Amino acid sequence: MNAQKGEHLLIIGGDAAGMSAASQARRQRPDLKITAFEQGPYTSYGACGMPYYVQGLVEKAEDLVIRPAEVFRKKYDIDARVLHRVEEIDLQKRAVLVRDLKENKTFWEQFDQLLIATGASPIRPKLPGIDARGMHSLSLIPDGVAIRRAIEEESSKQAVIVGGGYIGLEMAEALTARGLEVSLVELLPQVMSTLDEDMAGLVAKILEQMGVTLYLGEGVESFQTSNGHVSGVKTSQHLIPADLVILGMGVRPNVGLAREAGIPLGKTGAILVDEGMRTQVPGVWAVGDCVESFHLVSGKKAFIALGTVANKQGRVAGINLGGGNAHFPGVVGTAITRVGEMEMARTGLSVREAEDLGLDYVTAFIRARTRAKYYPGGGSMAVRVVAEKETGRFLGGQIVGTAGAGKRIDVLATALHAGMKVPQMLYLDLAYAPPFSPVWDPVLIALRQIAGKL
Amino acid sequence: MNAQKGEHLLIIGGDAAGMSAASQARRQRPDLKITAFEQGPYTSYGACGMPYYVQGLVEKAEDLVIRPAEVFRKKYDIDARVLHRVEEIDLQKRAVLVRDLKENKTFWEQFDQLLIATGASPIRPKLPGIDARGMHSLSLIPDGVAIRRAIEEESSKQAVIVGGGYIGLEMAEALTARGLEVSLVELLPQVMSTLDEDMAGLVAKILEQMGVTLYLGEGVESFQTSNGHVSGVKTSQHLIPADLVILGMGVRPNVGLAREAGIPLGKTGAILVDEGMRTQVPGVWAVGDCVESFHLVSGKKAFIALGTVANKQGRVAGINLGGGNAHFPGVVGTAITRVGEMEMARTGLSVREAEDLGLDYVTAFIRARTRAKYYPGGGSMAVRVVAEKETGRFLGGQIVGTAGAGKRIDVLATALHAGMKVPQMLYLDLAYAPPFSPVWDPVLIALRQIAGKL
Repeated sequence: MNAQKGEHLLIIGGDAAGMSAASQARRQRPDLKITAFEQGPYTSYGACGMPYYVQGLVEKAEDLVIRPAEVFRKKYDIDARVLHRVEEIDLQKRAVLVRDLKENKTFWEQFDQLLIATGASPIRPKLPGIDARGMHSLSLIPDGVAIRRAIEEESSKQAVIVGGGYIGLEMAEALTARGLEVSLVELLPQVMSTLDEDMAGLVAKILEQMGVTLYLGEGVESFQTSNGHVSGVKTSQHLIPADLVILGMGVRPNVGLAREAGIPLGKTGAILVDEGMRTQVPGVWAVGDCVESFHLVSGKKAFIALGTVANKQGRVAGINLGGGNAHFPGVVGTAITRVGEMEMARTGLSVREAEDLGLDYVTAFIRARTRAKYYPGGGSMAVRVVAEKETGRFLGGQIVGTAGAGKRIDVLATALHAGMKVPQMLYLDLAYAPPFSPVWDPVLIALRQIAGKL
Repeated sequence: MNAQKGEHLLIIGGDAAGMSAASQARRQRPDLKITAFEQGPYTSYGACGMPYYVQGLVEKAEDLVIRPAEVFRKKYDIDARVLHRVEEIDLQKRAVLVRDLKENKTFWEQFDQLLIATGASPIRPKLPGIDARGMHSLSLIPDGVAIRRAIEEESSKQAVIVGGGYIGLEMAEALTARGLEVSLVELLPQVMSTLDEDMAGLVAKILEQMGVTLYLGEGVESFQTSNGHVSGVKTSQHLIPADLVILGMGVRPNVGLAREAGIPLGKTGAILVDEGMRTQVPGVWAVGDCVESFHLVSGKKAFIALGTVANKQGRVAGINLGGGNAHFPGVVGTAITRVGEMEMARTGLSVREAEDLGLDYVTAFIRARTRAKYYPGGGSMAVRVVAEKETGRFLGGQIVGTAGAGKRIDVLATALHAGMKVPQMLYLDLAYAPPFSPVWDPVLIALRQIAGKL
């Protein structure tokens, strides 16, 4: 089912997943004809960097572009075309209908192998005022450019962020740093629904210290407008004045093209793929934010839209298209971000997720220093861990703390991949020196604590 | 073989290993009588912090003391006595001969359970001039105090460090920061013998940029003196003027007492213990820098003197003494330090060690960014990894790089504990966000590279 000699590999979507598949396939197969259609103006851009562009930590939007279309064309012989939107997949004809957005013309393009990397789009609830000016999502580079323009040229002053997830938090910092008055509205009673309540409480405290006003447990009912521009956000309990609104309510996989073509979706609503990134249709592959992943801890399919996962899946598809035999084993639900000086990270199952799965779990919470107590510049960090009571199987962890705290989650993520049990992890030989850690790494202190409950 | 009700647990050595065993045993067993004899003036001190004390990053030597003897006495009911040196163990009488160094009197003290935590001592080669004034090791707190006094009160100006290991490097930075002219002499052709040549080369470069003069591949032949004070270091090729010499040539386990009592040592020359920290003599336990460890990757015994290992072993012994059933699985050879802004870490087997063990290995070296390219404040890091060719078993890794690079070694250390193979590690779900990592963590880039050679 891999590509045959001289075949045409056609890719829908020119961001991380698609282009990383394209490069990998090219590396292994100089004979393939490779074409990639991207509806936006850029290929291979770092969407995760956009909050930092808005904040001004990244100067130009172009700095976020990892590799422009010309480089793909010239250096990799990949015909990457921006401003080209695929509007239909015809599996019978083995062709796609493409619209050249600059010329506004359509044409059919044949393929032998098709890779779908259509990504995901921000959720935009059908509420009154949703289409007003001043309403923004953050998904493509032009979104970031528009927000920055709103700040710099339209002098927006009062921002409301809808949604307390990763994008919401990062934008709260970015906009606060830019001098805006920032409110954050979240339907759930806590920010960061992927963290447990107490850990999320630590994050909320940081946001408040930063000057962000939190409206938790409040649903948005409408967006008020004045002359077609947003002027306020009406929640179940408040009316918050706003001249800039950021929607950070999560994303949905872009599966319209695939669904209409009859390519099977999974239970999560994203495209169903095997470990080799093949859909159920021969010769059709899918990668990135439009597919569902296997969650190695829950044993269930999950929809997790993250750049690092997209890149990995792209590589696996590229290797397989090129005649290799790679497997994407799945994810363990690792994620990280920072707000101000505080880092927050999670992996595996939270307490809530363990409960929802009906697992018999134990959990522990500890606080510790990031460095030896006597070494300057250290701070404190909190760790929560979860394990299965009967088997001792490690299930997941969460970390909130100062510099150096967050990336410690990787130890726990690695343990999840290896299927380790808590007793195996108690004496992990983790790196110790006073500038890096207390003599017992905080992760080990947390594991020690939970071991006592098994 | 655990302690019986009301028994007397006697501990020789009041640093990390011994006192952590004492505290753990106390926590589980309020009935035990616990006595600890420490020959130095402090209990439970952070010896690893001494270079930072010399540098001035830690103000007072007392800041390094995690828990003073009074606290053990008052809060834990542990009779911790400093300035008490144990001079003999009599296994027949089940007693030790103790010298009260303040009163200069000896007495016999009975025990039911004996825990040996005598630590290790710096190697002092029997070379001419070794006992001159101005010659220093760095093992106990008074050593650090003496060095700082030499700088602050005796105005030492020209320091020579003998040995390019962890202590040597940390002292090179400390003394450079204090304004001394620093030379470092190392018998081997590279610094940091636990790193492979190219990685050590990166470290050497940093030392040189810091102003340290390196004399590599040169053995010390004698220490020149003037009026009983060191005035120079004569190597096989140079005569280096010096008014302060630091010996950083490694340590040897303090096993004299144990050996004379007939407690069996292992092949490494350190005390032989099982996974529960029991020696071969019933009722006699040993922990910390005086025992040998099982190296989980080489499958051989190794002598590794590190505070974090000592603490873990102390805890295991304490649990077992208290009636529990804990196992110290062994080490994977993880270590970390920093010089200036550069961090260096290692775990498992180096290329040289894999070779020495006769393993059929492959290795890979990569350079990558510590953060997303567009995110400010990132730097570069180098990673070397080693794997077994036939089985794909991951064997070890080394990292040299800027802030955030070093602790990434913990991912590799965890994988070693779990016995992971490289193909299992290629798509580890490690935490990604632009302030923390490129979209492919450098560790994964290195693993990807080595996978291509399997």
